[in-house]
Amino acid sequence: MNSSTLSALERVAGHRQRFDAAFEKYFAELATDLGSAQLGRFAPRCLELLAELSLRGGKRIRIALIHEAAGLVGGGGAAGLAEAALSLELLHSHALILDDIMDDSPLRRGGPSTYYACRQDLPDNPQAALGLAMMTGDLAGFLALRVLVRADLPADRRQAMLDVQLGVTTDTVIGQVLDLERDVNPTADDVTLETVCEYKTSRYTILAPMRLGLLAAGQDLAPHEESLRRYARLAGLSGQIRDDYLDLFGDPARTGKPRGADLRAGRHTYLTRDLLAATGEDEHATVKAALGNPHCTPQTIDRIRDIAHRHHVHTRLQATIDHYAHAATAEATSWHRHWNEEAVTLFEQLPLWNTRRTR
Amino acid sequence: MNSSTLSALERVAGHRQRFDAAFEKYFAELATDLGSAQLGRFAPRCLELLAELSLRGGKRIRIALIHEAAGLVGGGGAAGLAEAALSLELLHSHALILDDIMDDSPLRRGGPSTYYACRQDLPDNPQAALGLAMMTGDLAGFLALRVLVRADLPADRRQAMLDVQLGVTTDTVIGQVLDLERDVNPTADDVTLETVCEYKTSRYTILAPMRLGLLAAGQDLAPHEESLRRYARLAGLSGQIRDDYLDLFGDPARTGKPRGADLRAGRHTYLTRDLLAATGEDEHATVKAALGNPHCTPQTIDRIRDIAHRHHVHTRLQATIDHYAHAATAEATSWHRHWNEEAVTLFEQLPLWNTRRTR
Repeated sequence: MNSSTLSALERVAGHRQRFDAAFEKYFAELATDLGSAQLGRFAPRCLELLAELSLRGGKRIRIALIHEAAGLVGGGGAAGLAEAALSLELLHSHALILDDIMDDSPLRRGGPSTYYACRQDLPDNPQAALGLAMMTGDLAGFLALRVLVRADLPADRRQAMLDVQLGVTTDTVIGQVLDLERDVNPTADDVTLETVCEYKTSRYTILAPMRLGLLAAGQDLAPHEESLRRYARLAGLSGQIRDDYLDLFGDPARTGKPRGADLRAGRHTYLTRDLLAATGEDEHATVKAALGNPHCTPQTIDRIRDIAHRHHVHTRLQATIDHYAHAATAEATSWHRHWNEEAVTLFEQLPLWNTRRTR
Repeated sequence: MNSSTLSALERVAGHRQRFDAAFEKYFAELATDLGSAQLGRFAPRCLELLAELSLRGGKRIRIALIHEAAGLVGGGGAAGLAEAALSLELLHSHALILDDIMDDSPLRRGGPSTYYACRQDLPDNPQAALGLAMMTGDLAGFLALRVLVRADLPADRRQAMLDVQLGVTTDTVIGQVLDLERDVNPTADDVTLETVCEYKTSRYTILAPMRLGLLAAGQDLAPHEESLRRYARLAGLSGQIRDDYLDLFGDPARTGKPRGADLRAGRHTYLTRDLLAATGEDEHATVKAALGNPHCTPQTIDRIRDIAHRHHVHTRLQATIDHYAHAATAEATSWHRHWNEEAVTLFEQLPLWNTRRTR
């Protein structure tokens, strides 16, 4: 590991640390801010559940992207970065809470999903538990925008940042709906897989934080839109396929989810596409039977992993992950012409780190 | 009916008509605007479901309030009123879609609820149907804010209006959660009933539209906040209790919902409070058994209605409705000192109309 990688990793860790402290402070003040502290038991519980999930962490990749994107134009400490960061992570909590209801997922980030925490709170009233979880997710989405609306910023900058975030919200809904459609259909073609990734990952996890960071730092986005989109697409594909890979080949102690969760949920991912394409007859039938079967045993998942290994699905998938990552890096390299070296280097390295990511 | 009532009613009908045309146009352009027209079947279906529910109507009471509030200060055609109106009704669609999921309600506005329409679309996949309905609701909430963010207005006015709408979103979530808590508890006390009404009805249906209308018309709200809040509280209580009343004493052909829907859903309303207080022994047990029993027959609901009539629950409830309505009217009368007569008259009449509302 060379010294520029080391300093980039230290910067990323610093962004995360500072953000986590700010996020904790945000939640500590939220109940007072909303005037909900004295309102019964459910409203405070709602905020508690949201804080719990949000502070349980995650990779905070968007936080690094926001701050480093501002760093591209030397705007590291720009006003609005803190609010944009809160907004993105609140929106992410919103998406996670809703996802786990729609997928009926018990676990998230190594703990109970918000939906299952609500079901545990109200074991005799599943309908009220659903309602409480839905409202917790709903609140998170609106808070994500509220934090930007109330940011103390020049009006035009706040406006531009709000516009980006609202684009993210509708894109993410569309992505989620495409995702549902993909899994309801018998198979998914490459165009569908890439479109879902574009909406659910590239725009949301990569493009939006970069745009917000650059806007906060005062950069006019128009001349760079094309290149940012290309980078986001390539890095997004690499990241999405790595996620798909980890579902079968990852270590549950690292990912925080049981192995084969996507398979059991009937997700048509890059992994299942390659698995189904590589296998014939009996093995094909084994994979098909597991796909969408929530009761599929860990033994069957292990067997499918063996099948995948035998057909080198993991090697081919990893090659695809590497391919997109290198293309993303090449795109970032072109930024050396006009943006700060240190931050550009991070955007070159990020896709490569992702290729060996374990959670 | 005197001539000022007649002209007020004509104005209200005009607001509704113009709004409905604008809402239809909004949805006609939305798919292009979101770039989702070509994206599979589910994303266009999502927009179609949202448009269908939204255009199925409703009373559009908020629309009248926005425009008449602007009229209080002579700002009838002010910029931003159209966007505020779209924003409020989109947010209302959001709330209705989510409500019907949480309550598992098949009907809304005389047609299928969005949730049940999704279940009909995907009879073999209830989890995907839930997802599609949730995403349709989610989208509506974000579109409600997007329409304001993109409104072509002076920055400070847009900002103030966004701030009001974001207050509405968090208030409504809190109201919904209080509502859930109320119904999970064995009984609801008066403070709880009034707090739920404050969050779910007064602030949302009355105060927010009035504040938005006044802001669009350039009025500084600060000197009037107290009076607006009092009016909203009183008119809100009157309206909420009338809603509760209609659940048992209304005509399903007018309300668009089967009689006793609140009872079956286990709602602790002003009606159930009075019913339980008025009845002894056997009748009390009949009401208790129906409350929260989704399979309660129409015959039982009819029996409960007879019980209610026998104990004059309807008369007492109506007296309470009238009491709050008159108090709201008195509050509006004080506005003659500083605001336009014609619009003030409408705000005086509105609570009184509400007392005999049939849907």
